[in-house]
Amino acid sequence: MANGKWKSDSQGAKGVPKAVVYRLSLYLRELQRLIRGGDTMASSGKLGKLLGLTDAQVRKDLAIFGQFGHPGVGYRCEDLVGAIKGILGTDREWTVAMIGAGNLGRALLGYRGFASQGFRVAAVFDADPAKIGQSLEGLVVEDVERLSEVVREREISLGLIAAPAEAAQEAATRLAAAGVVGILNFAPVTLHSLPVEVSQVSVDLATELEQLSFAVANRPETR
Amino acid sequence: MANGKWKSDSQGAKGVPKAVVYRLSLYLRELQRLIRGGDTMASSGKLGKLLGLTDAQVRKDLAIFGQFGHPGVGYRCEDLVGAIKGILGTDREWTVAMIGAGNLGRALLGYRGFASQGFRVAAVFDADPAKIGQSLEGLVVEDVERLSEVVREREISLGLIAAPAEAAQEAATRLAAAGVVGILNFAPVTLHSLPVEVSQVSVDLATELEQLSFAVANRPETR
Repeated sequence: MANGKWKSDSQGAKGVPKAVVYRLSLYLRELQRLIRGGDTMASSGKLGKLLGLTDAQVRKDLAIFGQFGHPGVGYRCEDLVGAIKGILGTDREWTVAMIGAGNLGRALLGYRGFASQGFRVAAVFDADPAKIGQSLEGLVVEDVERLSEVVREREISLGLIAAPAEAAQEAATRLAAAGVVGILNFAPVTLHSLPVEVSQVSVDLATELEQLSFAVANRPETR
Repeated sequence: MANGKWKSDSQGAKGVPKAVVYRLSLYLRELQRLIRGGDTMASSGKLGKLLGLTDAQVRKDLAIFGQFGHPGVGYRCEDLVGAIKGILGTDREWTVAMIGAGNLGRALLGYRGFASQGFRVAAVFDADPAKIGQSLEGLVVEDVERLSEVVREREISLGLIAAPAEAAQEAATRLAAAGVVGILNFAPVTLHSLPVEVSQVSVDLATELEQLSFAVANRPETR
Protein backbone atom coordinates (compact mmCIF):
# COMPACT_ATOMS: atom_id res chain seq x y z
CA MET A 1 0.00 0.00 0.00
CA ALA A 2 2.53 2.53 -1.09
CA ASN A 3 1.26 6.07 -1.62
CA GLY A 4 4.56 7.05 -3.13
CA LYS A 5 5.19 9.60 -5.83
CA TRP A 6 3.34 9.44 -9.08
CA LYS A 7 4.49 10.14 -12.53
CA SER A 8 3.85 13.44 -14.15
CA ASP A 9 1.10 13.40 -16.75
CA SER A 10 1.22 15.68 -19.73
CA GLN A 11 -2.55 15.95 -19.88
CA GLY A 12 -2.97 18.39 -16.98
CA ALA A 13 -1.24 21.46 -15.60
CA LYS A 14 -0.87 19.89 -12.15
CA GLY A 15 0.25 16.58 -13.61
CA VAL A 16 -3.12 14.88 -13.29
CA PRO A 17 -6.27 15.74 -15.29
CA LYS A 18 -8.93 17.50 -13.22
CA ALA A 19 -11.50 14.90 -14.16
CA VAL A 20 -9.34 12.19 -12.61
CA VAL A 21 -9.10 14.15 -9.35
CA TYR A 22 -12.88 14.65 -9.36
CA ARG A 23 -13.24 10.89 -9.74
CA LEU A 24 -10.98 10.40 -6.70
CA SER A 25 -13.62 12.28 -4.66
CA LEU A 26 -16.30 10.00 -6.12
CA TYR A 27 -14.28 6.87 -5.30
CA LEU A 28 -13.80 8.22 -1.76
CA ARG A 29 -17.56 8.75 -1.26
CA GLU A 30 -18.41 5.27 -2.58
CA LEU A 31 -15.72 3.61 -0.46
CA GLN A 32 -16.97 5.43 2.66
CA ARG A 33 -20.51 4.26 1.85
CA LEU A 34 -19.29 0.67 1.34
CA ILE A 35 -17.48 0.79 4.72
CA ARG A 36 -20.61 2.12 6.45
CA GLY A 37 -22.46 -0.80 4.85
CA GLY A 38 -19.98 -3.25 6.34
CA ASP A 39 -17.81 -4.01 3.30
CA THR A 40 -14.06 -4.33 3.76
CA MET A 41 -12.95 -5.07 0.18
CA ALA A 42 -13.95 -3.52 -3.15
CA SER A 43 -12.99 -4.54 -6.67
CA SER A 44 -12.42 -2.08 -9.52
CA GLY A 45 -15.47 -3.67 -11.15
CA LYS A 46 -17.64 -2.90 -8.12
CA LEU A 47 -16.42 0.72 -7.82
CA GLY A 48 -16.83 1.14 -11.57
CA LYS A 49 -20.36 -0.21 -11.55
CA LEU A 50 -21.38 2.23 -8.79
CA LEU A 51 -20.11 5.14 -10.89
CA GLY A 52 -20.87 4.01 -14.42
CA LEU A 53 -17.19 3.56 -15.27
CA THR A 54 -15.43 0.56 -16.77
CA ASP A 55 -13.24 -1.41 -14.36
CA ALA A 56 -10.31 -0.58 -16.65
CA GLN A 57 -10.96 3.15 -16.15
CA VAL A 58 -11.01 2.74 -12.34
CA ARG A 59 -7.73 0.79 -12.38
CA LYS A 60 -6.17 3.33 -14.76
CA ASP A 61 -7.21 6.27 -12.54
CA LEU A 62 -5.84 4.73 -9.34
CA ALA A 63 -2.68 3.42 -11.01
CA ILE A 64 -1.63 7.03 -11.63
CA PHE A 65 -1.02 7.36 -7.89
CA GLY A 66 0.44 4.01 -6.97
CA GLN A 67 -0.19 0.32 -6.50
CA PHE A 68 -3.18 0.02 -4.16
CA GLY A 69 -4.99 -3.17 -5.08
CA HIS A 70 -4.22 -6.84 -4.80
CA PRO A 71 -4.66 -8.81 -8.04
CA GLY A 72 -7.72 -11.05 -7.91
CA VAL A 73 -8.75 -9.63 -4.52
CA GLY A 74 -9.35 -5.93 -5.06
CA TYR A 75 -8.80 -2.94 -2.82
CA ARG A 76 -8.99 -2.88 0.98
CA CYS A 77 -11.61 -0.14 1.55
CA GLU A 78 -10.04 1.45 4.65
CA ASP A 79 -6.58 1.51 3.11
CA LEU A 80 -7.84 3.03 -0.12
CA VAL A 81 -9.82 5.70 1.80
CA GLY A 82 -6.66 6.63 3.69
CA ALA A 83 -4.61 6.67 0.50
CA ILE A 84 -7.14 8.84 -1.39
CA LYS A 85 -7.37 11.32 1.51
CA GLY A 86 -3.59 11.48 1.47
CA ILE A 87 -3.62 12.11 -2.29
CA LEU A 88 -6.39 14.74 -2.02
CA GLY A 89 -4.55 16.42 0.85
CA THR A 90 -7.58 16.24 3.16
CA ASP A 91 -5.69 14.36 5.87
CA ARG A 92 -4.55 17.66 7.43
CA GLU A 93 -6.07 21.02 8.47
CA TRP A 94 -6.16 23.97 6.07
CA THR A 95 -6.51 27.57 7.22
CA VAL A 96 -8.86 29.60 5.03
CA ALA A 97 -9.55 33.32 4.44
CA MET A 98 -13.00 34.13 3.14
CA ILE A 99 -13.51 37.21 0.97
CA GLY A 100 -17.07 38.49 0.99
CA ALA A 101 -19.34 38.71 4.02
CA GLY A 102 -22.50 39.00 1.97
CA ASN A 103 -25.19 36.37 1.59
CA LEU A 104 -22.98 33.74 0.01
CA GLY A 105 -20.13 34.26 2.47
CA ARG A 106 -22.50 33.99 5.43
CA ALA A 107 -24.06 30.87 3.96
CA LEU A 108 -20.66 29.26 3.40
CA LEU A 109 -19.46 30.18 6.91
CA GLY A 110 -22.39 28.21 8.26
CA TYR A 111 -21.70 25.22 6.02
CA ARG A 112 -20.87 22.25 8.24
CA GLY A 113 -18.89 20.40 5.61
CA PHE A 114 -15.96 22.84 5.77
CA ALA A 115 -14.92 22.14 9.35
CA SER A 116 -15.57 18.40 9.08
CA GLN A 117 -13.26 18.19 6.05
CA GLY A 118 -10.53 20.03 7.94
CA PHE A 119 -10.96 23.49 6.42
CA ARG A 120 -10.87 26.11 9.21
CA VAL A 121 -11.97 29.64 8.27
CA ALA A 122 -9.61 31.93 10.19
CA ALA A 123 -10.64 35.32 8.74
CA VAL A 124 -13.50 36.98 6.85
CA PHE A 125 -13.03 40.14 4.82
CA ASP A 126 -15.29 42.65 3.13
CA ALA A 127 -14.88 46.10 1.56
CA ASP A 128 -18.24 47.41 2.80
CA PRO A 129 -17.87 49.66 5.89
CA ALA A 130 -21.35 48.55 6.98
CA LYS A 131 -20.17 44.94 7.18
CA ILE A 132 -16.70 45.50 8.67
CA GLY A 133 -16.82 44.91 12.43
CA GLN A 134 -19.87 42.64 12.30
CA SER A 135 -19.60 39.32 14.10
CA LEU A 136 -20.22 36.16 12.03
CA GLU A 137 -19.91 32.59 13.30
CA GLY A 138 -17.35 33.60 15.89
CA LEU A 139 -15.33 35.81 13.52
CA VAL A 140 -15.28 39.58 13.14
CA VAL A 141 -15.51 40.84 9.54
CA GLU A 142 -12.28 42.68 8.72
CA ASP A 143 -11.43 45.37 6.19
CA VAL A 144 -10.20 43.78 2.97
CA GLU A 145 -7.41 46.38 3.04
CA ARG A 146 -5.93 44.39 5.95
CA LEU A 147 -6.01 41.11 4.01
CA SER A 148 -2.32 40.86 3.25
CA GLU A 149 -1.30 41.57 6.84
CA VAL A 150 -3.82 39.11 8.32
CA VAL A 151 -3.01 36.31 5.87
CA ARG A 152 0.65 36.52 6.86
CA GLU A 153 -0.02 36.83 10.62
CA ARG A 154 -2.41 33.87 10.76
CA GLU A 155 -0.48 31.78 8.25
CA ILE A 156 -3.54 31.38 6.05
CA SER A 157 -2.96 29.11 3.07
CA LEU A 158 -6.27 29.11 1.13
CA GLY A 159 -8.66 31.82 -0.04
CA LEU A 160 -12.37 31.39 -0.65
CA ILE A 161 -13.96 34.03 -2.85
CA ALA A 162 -17.61 34.64 -2.04
CA ALA A 163 -17.58 38.19 -3.37
CA PRO A 164 -19.78 39.52 -6.20
CA ALA A 165 -18.53 38.82 -9.73
CA GLU A 166 -17.24 42.36 -10.18
CA ALA A 167 -15.09 42.15 -7.04
CA ALA A 168 -13.77 38.62 -7.54
CA GLN A 169 -10.72 39.43 -9.65
CA GLU A 170 -9.43 42.05 -7.23
CA ALA A 171 -9.99 39.65 -4.34
CA ALA A 172 -8.02 36.96 -6.16
CA THR A 173 -5.18 39.34 -6.94
CA ARG A 174 -5.00 40.42 -3.28
CA LEU A 175 -5.06 36.82 -2.05
CA ALA A 176 -2.29 35.79 -4.43
CA ALA A 177 -0.16 38.79 -3.45
CA ALA A 178 -0.67 37.93 0.21
CA GLY A 179 0.77 34.49 -0.40
CA VAL A 180 -2.14 32.04 -0.36
CA VAL A 181 -1.47 28.87 -2.35
CA GLY A 182 -5.02 28.04 -3.43
CA ILE A 183 -8.27 29.84 -4.24
CA LEU A 184 -11.79 28.39 -4.32
CA ASN A 185 -13.89 30.74 -6.42
CA PHE A 186 -17.68 30.85 -6.02
CA ALA A 187 -18.06 33.97 -8.17
CA PRO A 188 -19.31 33.21 -11.69
CA VAL A 189 -16.25 34.66 -13.42
CA THR A 190 -12.98 33.27 -14.70
CA LEU A 191 -10.00 34.54 -12.73
CA HIS A 192 -6.89 35.50 -14.68
CA SER A 193 -3.37 36.80 -14.25
CA LEU A 194 -2.71 34.77 -11.12
CA PRO A 195 0.75 33.38 -10.41
CA VAL A 196 1.13 29.83 -11.69
CA GLU A 197 1.86 28.58 -8.16
CA VAL A 198 -1.59 29.63 -6.92
CA SER A 199 -4.06 26.79 -7.55
CA GLN A 200 -7.63 27.64 -8.50
CA VAL A 201 -10.91 25.76 -8.41
CA SER A 202 -14.17 27.31 -9.57
CA VAL A 203 -17.54 26.07 -8.38
CA ASP A 204 -19.89 25.58 -11.31
CA LEU A 205 -23.48 25.53 -10.05
CA ALA A 206 -24.72 25.20 -13.63
CA THR A 207 -23.49 21.61 -13.68
CA GLU A 208 -25.64 20.74 -10.68
CA LEU A 209 -28.68 22.24 -12.37
CA GLU A 210 -27.99 20.26 -15.51
CA GLN A 211 -27.87 17.05 -13.48
CA LEU A 212 -31.30 17.80 -12.04
CA SER A 213 -32.69 18.82 -15.38
CA PHE A 214 -31.48 15.56 -16.88
CA ALA A 215 -32.95 13.50 -14.08
CA VAL A 216 -36.32 15.20 -14.50
CA ALA A 217 -36.34 15.15 -18.29
CA ASN A 218 -35.54 11.43 -18.25
CA ARG A 219 -37.45 10.16 -15.27
CA PRO A 220 -39.10 6.76 -15.81
CA GLU A 221 -42.68 8.02 -16.07
CA THR A 222 -44.48 11.36 -16.07
CA ARG A 223 -47.38 11.91 -13.77
CA MET B 1 -27.42 12.98 -35.90
CA ALA B 2 -30.40 11.32 -34.29
CA ASN B 3 -31.06 12.17 -30.66
CA GLY B 4 -33.54 9.36 -30.46
CA LYS B 5 -34.43 7.19 -27.50
CA TRP B 6 -31.75 5.40 -25.55
CA LYS B 7 -31.76 2.02 -24.03
CA SER B 8 -32.38 1.58 -20.33
CA ASP B 9 -29.28 0.82 -18.27
CA SER B 10 -29.49 -1.32 -15.19
CA GLN B 11 -26.73 0.59 -13.43
CA GLY B 12 -28.80 3.63 -12.44
CA ALA B 13 -32.26 4.42 -11.12
CA LYS B 14 -32.97 6.84 -13.94
CA GLY B 15 -31.58 4.47 -16.53
CA VAL B 16 -28.17 6.15 -16.81
CA PRO B 17 -25.47 6.26 -14.11
CA LYS B 18 -25.13 9.69 -12.49
CA ALA B 19 -21.43 9.78 -13.28
CA VAL B 20 -22.21 9.48 -17.00
CA VAL B 21 -24.63 12.42 -16.78
CA TYR B 22 -21.99 14.45 -14.95
CA ARG B 23 -19.58 13.66 -17.78
CA LEU B 24 -22.16 14.95 -20.29
CA SER B 25 -21.87 18.35 -18.56
CA LEU B 26 -18.09 18.13 -18.84
CA TYR B 27 -18.29 17.21 -22.54
CA LEU B 28 -20.64 20.16 -23.04
CA ARG B 29 -18.24 22.63 -21.38
CA GLU B 30 -15.27 21.34 -23.41
CA LEU B 31 -17.22 21.43 -26.68
CA GLN B 32 -18.35 25.00 -25.98
CA ARG B 33 -14.73 25.94 -25.27
CA LEU B 34 -13.58 24.26 -28.50
CA ILE B 35 -16.26 26.16 -30.46
CA ARG B 36 -15.18 29.47 -28.88
CA GLY B 37 -11.64 28.58 -29.95
CA GLY B 38 -12.77 28.10 -33.54
CA ASP B 39 -12.94 24.31 -33.75
CA THR B 40 -15.81 22.70 -35.63
CA MET B 41 -14.96 19.00 -35.21
CA ALA B 42 -13.81 16.99 -32.18
CA SER B 43 -12.76 13.37 -31.95
CA SER B 44 -13.46 11.11 -28.96
CA GLY B 45 -9.70 11.05 -28.45
CA LYS B 46 -9.54 14.85 -28.23
CA LEU B 47 -12.47 15.11 -25.82
CA GLY B 48 -11.03 12.27 -23.77
CA LYS B 49 -7.61 13.87 -23.58
CA LEU B 50 -9.12 17.15 -22.29
CA LEU B 51 -10.86 15.26 -19.48
CA GLY B 52 -8.41 12.47 -18.72
CA LEU B 53 -10.68 9.77 -20.11
CA THR B 54 -9.90 7.07 -22.64
CA ASP B 55 -11.41 7.60 -26.09
CA ALA B 56 -13.28 4.31 -25.57
CA GLN B 57 -14.93 5.75 -22.43
CA VAL B 58 -16.05 8.87 -24.32
CA ARG B 59 -17.52 6.81 -27.15
CA LYS B 60 -19.21 4.45 -24.67
CA ASP B 61 -20.76 7.38 -22.74
CA LEU B 62 -22.15 9.06 -25.85
CA ALA B 63 -23.27 5.80 -27.44
CA ILE B 64 -25.76 5.38 -24.58
CA PHE B 65 -27.73 8.27 -26.07
CA GLY B 66 -27.44 7.67 -29.78
CA GLN B 67 -25.20 7.74 -32.82
CA PHE B 68 -23.60 11.18 -32.91
CA GLY B 69 -20.19 10.79 -34.48
CA HIS B 70 -18.92 10.01 -37.93
CA PRO B 71 -16.36 7.16 -38.09
CA GLY B 72 -12.88 8.46 -38.83
CA VAL B 73 -14.06 12.08 -38.67
CA GLY B 74 -15.37 12.60 -35.11
CA TYR B 75 -18.20 14.71 -33.78
CA ARG B 76 -19.46 17.99 -35.22
CA CYS B 77 -19.10 20.30 -32.18
CA GLU B 78 -22.27 22.36 -32.72
CA ASP B 79 -24.40 19.30 -33.36
CA LEU B 80 -23.07 17.51 -30.29
CA VAL B 81 -23.66 20.62 -28.10
CA GLY B 82 -27.27 20.72 -29.29
CA ALA B 83 -27.70 17.01 -28.73
CA ILE B 84 -26.21 17.12 -25.21
CA LYS B 85 -28.41 20.10 -24.25
CA GLY B 86 -31.38 18.13 -25.50
CA ILE B 87 -30.33 15.12 -23.44
CA LEU B 88 -29.69 17.24 -20.33
CA GLY B 89 -33.03 18.98 -20.80
CA THR B 90 -31.48 22.45 -20.72
CA ASP B 91 -32.95 23.42 -24.10
CA ARG B 92 -36.15 24.67 -22.40
CA GLU B 93 -37.16 26.91 -19.46
CA TRP B 94 -37.76 25.44 -15.99
CA THR B 95 -39.83 27.18 -13.33
CA VAL B 96 -38.29 26.94 -9.86
CA ALA B 97 -39.52 27.43 -6.27
CA MET B 98 -36.84 28.29 -3.74
CA ILE B 99 -37.27 27.27 -0.11
CA GLY B 100 -35.25 29.37 2.28
CA ALA B 101 -34.76 33.13 2.11
CA GLY B 102 -31.72 33.10 4.38
CA ASN B 103 -28.15 33.77 3.36
CA LEU B 104 -27.85 30.85 0.96
CA GLY B 105 -31.24 31.49 -0.66
CA ARG B 106 -30.40 35.16 -1.20
CA ALA B 107 -27.01 34.23 -2.61
CA LEU B 108 -28.54 31.71 -5.02
CA LEU B 109 -31.25 34.16 -6.12
CA GLY B 110 -28.50 36.52 -7.19
CA TYR B 111 -26.59 33.79 -9.04
CA ARG B 112 -26.48 34.69 -12.72
CA GLY B 113 -26.04 31.16 -13.94
CA PHE B 114 -29.60 30.16 -13.09
CA ALA B 115 -31.36 32.46 -15.52
CA SER B 116 -28.79 31.98 -18.28
CA GLN B 117 -29.29 28.21 -18.09
CA GLY B 118 -33.05 28.62 -18.39
CA PHE B 119 -33.97 28.18 -14.72
CA ARG B 120 -36.48 30.89 -13.70
CA VAL B 121 -37.16 31.28 -9.97
CA ALA B 122 -40.90 32.04 -9.74
CA ALA B 123 -41.37 31.94 -5.94
CA VAL B 124 -39.36 32.14 -2.70
CA PHE B 125 -40.64 30.71 0.58
CA ASP B 126 -39.62 30.90 4.22
CA ALA B 127 -41.16 29.93 7.56
CA ASP B 128 -39.76 32.96 9.43
CA PRO B 129 -42.40 35.71 9.90
CA ALA B 130 -39.58 38.28 9.86
CA LYS B 131 -38.62 37.22 6.33
CA ILE B 132 -42.12 36.74 4.87
CA GLY B 133 -43.13 39.82 2.90
CA GLN B 134 -39.57 40.95 2.22
CA SER B 135 -38.69 41.76 -1.37
CA LEU B 136 -35.76 39.84 -2.92
CA GLU B 137 -34.57 40.13 -6.52
CA GLY B 138 -38.03 41.12 -7.71
CA LEU B 139 -39.86 38.45 -5.70
CA VAL B 140 -41.75 38.73 -2.41
CA VAL B 141 -40.89 36.05 0.19
CA GLU B 142 -44.01 33.97 0.82
CA ASP B 143 -45.13 31.86 3.76
CA VAL B 144 -44.01 28.26 3.26
CA GLU B 145 -47.54 27.28 4.35
CA ARG B 146 -48.69 28.60 0.97
CA LEU B 147 -46.18 26.48 -0.96
CA SER B 148 -48.57 23.87 -2.25
CA GLU B 149 -51.07 26.46 -3.52
CA VAL B 150 -48.39 28.61 -5.21
CA VAL B 151 -46.61 25.67 -6.84
CA ARG B 152 -49.87 24.61 -8.45
CA GLU B 153 -50.95 28.15 -9.45
CA ARG B 154 -47.61 29.04 -11.08
CA GLU B 155 -47.03 25.57 -12.53
CA ILE B 156 -43.66 25.28 -10.80
CA SER B 157 -41.79 22.13 -11.72
CA LEU B 158 -38.56 22.24 -9.68
CA GLY B 159 -37.73 22.96 -6.04
CA LEU B 160 -34.45 24.35 -4.75
CA ILE B 161 -33.81 23.79 -1.05
CA ALA B 162 -31.64 26.49 0.52
CA ALA B 163 -33.05 25.94 4.01
CA PRO B 164 -31.00 24.95 7.08
CA ALA B 165 -30.26 21.22 7.45
CA GLU B 166 -32.95 20.73 10.09
CA ALA B 167 -35.65 22.20 7.84
CA ALA B 168 -34.61 20.52 4.60
CA GLN B 169 -36.55 17.28 4.95
CA GLU B 170 -39.84 19.06 5.67
CA ALA B 171 -39.23 21.37 2.73
CA ALA B 172 -38.62 18.38 0.46
CA THR B 173 -41.76 16.61 1.67
CA ARG B 174 -43.83 19.74 1.03
CA LEU B 175 -42.34 20.22 -2.43
CA ALA B 176 -43.01 16.61 -3.39
CA ALA B 177 -46.58 16.79 -2.09
CA ALA B 178 -47.13 19.98 -4.09
CA GLY B 179 -46.17 18.15 -7.27
CA VAL B 180 -42.68 19.31 -8.22
CA VAL B 181 -40.77 16.78 -10.29
CA GLY B 182 -37.23 17.60 -9.19
CA ILE B 183 -35.39 18.94 -6.14
CA LEU B 184 -31.93 20.49 -5.98
CA ASN B 185 -30.77 20.22 -2.37
CA PHE B 186 -28.09 22.56 -1.01
CA ALA B 187 -28.64 21.48 2.60
CA PRO B 188 -25.96 19.07 3.86
CA VAL B 189 -28.41 16.25 4.60
CA THR B 190 -29.69 13.24 2.70
CA LEU B 191 -33.37 13.53 1.85
CA HIS B 192 -35.51 10.44 2.27
CA SER B 193 -39.05 9.14 1.83
CA LEU B 194 -39.65 11.08 -1.37
CA PRO B 195 -41.83 9.65 -4.13
CA VAL B 196 -39.77 7.78 -6.70
CA GLU B 197 -40.99 10.12 -9.45
CA VAL B 198 -39.36 13.15 -7.77
CA SER B 199 -35.75 13.45 -8.93
CA GLN B 200 -33.14 14.68 -6.49
CA VAL B 201 -29.69 16.17 -6.84
CA SER B 202 -27.58 17.16 -3.85
CA VAL B 203 -24.80 19.74 -4.08
CA ASP B 204 -21.64 18.47 -2.41
CA LEU B 205 -19.34 21.40 -1.62
CA ALA B 206 -16.88 19.03 0.04
CA THR B 207 -15.93 17.73 -3.41
CA GLU B 208 -14.95 21.22 -4.53
CA LEU B 209 -12.78 21.68 -1.47
CA GLU B 210 -11.08 18.36 -2.09
CA GLN B 211 -10.27 19.43 -5.63
CA LEU B 212 -8.58 22.59 -4.33
CA SER B 213 -6.79 20.70 -1.60
CA PHE B 214 -5.46 18.25 -4.17
CA ALA B 215 -4.30 21.01 -6.48
CA VAL B 216 -2.46 22.73 -3.66
CA ALA B 217 -0.97 19.57 -2.17
CA ASN B 218 0.32 18.55 -5.59
CA ARG B 219 1.32 21.85 -7.13
CA PRO B 220 4.52 21.75 -9.18
CA GLU B 221 6.74 23.65 -6.75
CA THR B 222 6.43 25.22 -3.32
CA ARG B 223 7.50 28.76 -2.78
